[in-house]
Amino acid sequence: MTGNLGKESIKVIAFDADDTLWSNEPLFRNAERMVAEAMSEFGDVEYISDELYKVEVKNMKDYGFGAMAYTLSMIENAVNLSSGKLSGELVTLILNSGRSLLHNPATPFPGVVETLDKLSEAGRYKLVLLTKGELLTQEHKIDRSGLGKYFSHIEIVSNKSQKEYLILCNKLGVRPEELLMVGNSFKSDIEPVLQLGGWGIHIPFEVLWKLEHTEEYDHPHLFKVTSFPEILPILL
Amino acid sequence: MTGNLGKESIKVIAFDADDTLWSNEPLFRNAERMVAEAMSEFGDVEYISDELYKVEVKNMKDYGFGAMAYTLSMIENAVNLSSGKLSGELVTLILNSGRSLLHNPATPFPGVVETLDKLSEAGRYKLVLLTKGELLTQEHKIDRSGLGKYFSHIEIVSNKSQKEYLILCNKLGVRPEELLMVGNSFKSDIEPVLQLGGWGIHIPFEVLWKLEHTEEYDHPHLFKVTSFPEILPILL
Repeated sequence: MTGNLGKESIKVIAFDADDTLWSNEPLFRNAERMVAEAMSEFGDVEYISDELYKVEVKNMKDYGFGAMAYTLSMIENAVNLSSGKLSGELVTLILNSGRSLLHNPATPFPGVVETLDKLSEAGRYKLVLLTKGELLTQEHKIDRSGLGKYFSHIEIVSNKSQKEYLILCNKLGVRPEELLMVGNSFKSDIEPVLQLGGWGIHIPFEVLWKLEHTEEYDHPHLFKVTSFPEILPILL
Repeated sequence: MTGNLGKESIKVIAFDADDTLWSNEPLFRNAERMVAEAMSEFGDVEYISDELYKVEVKNMKDYGFGAMAYTLSMIENAVNLSSGKLSGELVTLILNSGRSLLHNPATPFPGVVETLDKLSEAGRYKLVLLTKGELLTQEHKIDRSGLGKYFSHIEIVSNKSQKEYLILCNKLGVRPEELLMVGNSFKSDIEPVLQLGGWGIHIPFEVLWKLEHTEEYDHPHLFKVTSFPEILPILL
């Protein structure tokens, strides 16, 4: 933990969803591995994953980030690596692997419900949700998680850069220095908020997608914890 | 045209985007036809389209409505109709047909820019955009259209039912009877707003997706016009 929280100045706590409130990235890695294993005639798992990543980065501008984007890129990767000789069974397997991601139960991590309960009861902050991804996919996960009731505002965005945080602040009528963001991705959840003068609590998760990798550093407005319930003593 | 507009009571004009401000559905129909023609060994165009529609309806709950949803359903349809014997070239053709939809130039219909200019200048109403579909896809079309500047609020939703209109009204701080919606789909743009006590201007477009078909009727809060600029004499 670094920093010294200006509790009196913070009005809004924004939470990331995937891999902060519930597990998501491990499901992507499992889906990817299962498909790569079924494609073993075209290369080993690592090679297939590396090639998939290249296709995903190329398609990012069009498809964005999410389960449907993954599915489309994996199908394109299968066409590429099979030199156009892919089977209908493989395509079906990929479609089903994508569907399993859409059906992520979004079960809250241990301690999340209790922590949000306590923060809500304290009533000191407005709690909001800011999640990046595909609209319907994210809506469904929020519904399944049962956590929607804790948030007075839910925003689903296609990217998390300074721009999106400024828009959020405008919508909520607060200045960036009155915002604290809680999330697992330093690149998406923490850095843009710090750069705007806001605050961050970083909860690194065991798996981070390659595209979310970035250099991390200390900052007087930044706290780092290892599990969700540890945000409570910082905030209350 | 029916109805007698309560101009003094209306505060917000919400606009649908696809097939109201720019053309979209015809691109879907063209993409679908092109793919169906390439699949002629599996059946005629009508048969392939009917089967696609069944797959799209089945997938609607997971994929929602949009270009990535279309692409995934068309690939699934191709696997089904080819009994698993589809070629890599066909899959690539489908991926590219989906990409062409993502790259819709979203050129405003004739008169749209001039009409929005005049409505903006008049300053009588708050103008907002409410569009249904995939987040990034819709964001890109709004950007390409150059129309974003006219709207003080832009909302991308996965569905358009009474619920979404109520949320919109809450966010904007108006009552449903202070909202008028302009759009091409009676089912999505008009009916839920009328049911809430709001107002509608219906501008039917030449192509309407099957799933948007519904019974249409007259209503004292409903106006029907044939082109976008005809909304001006109603509103000003």
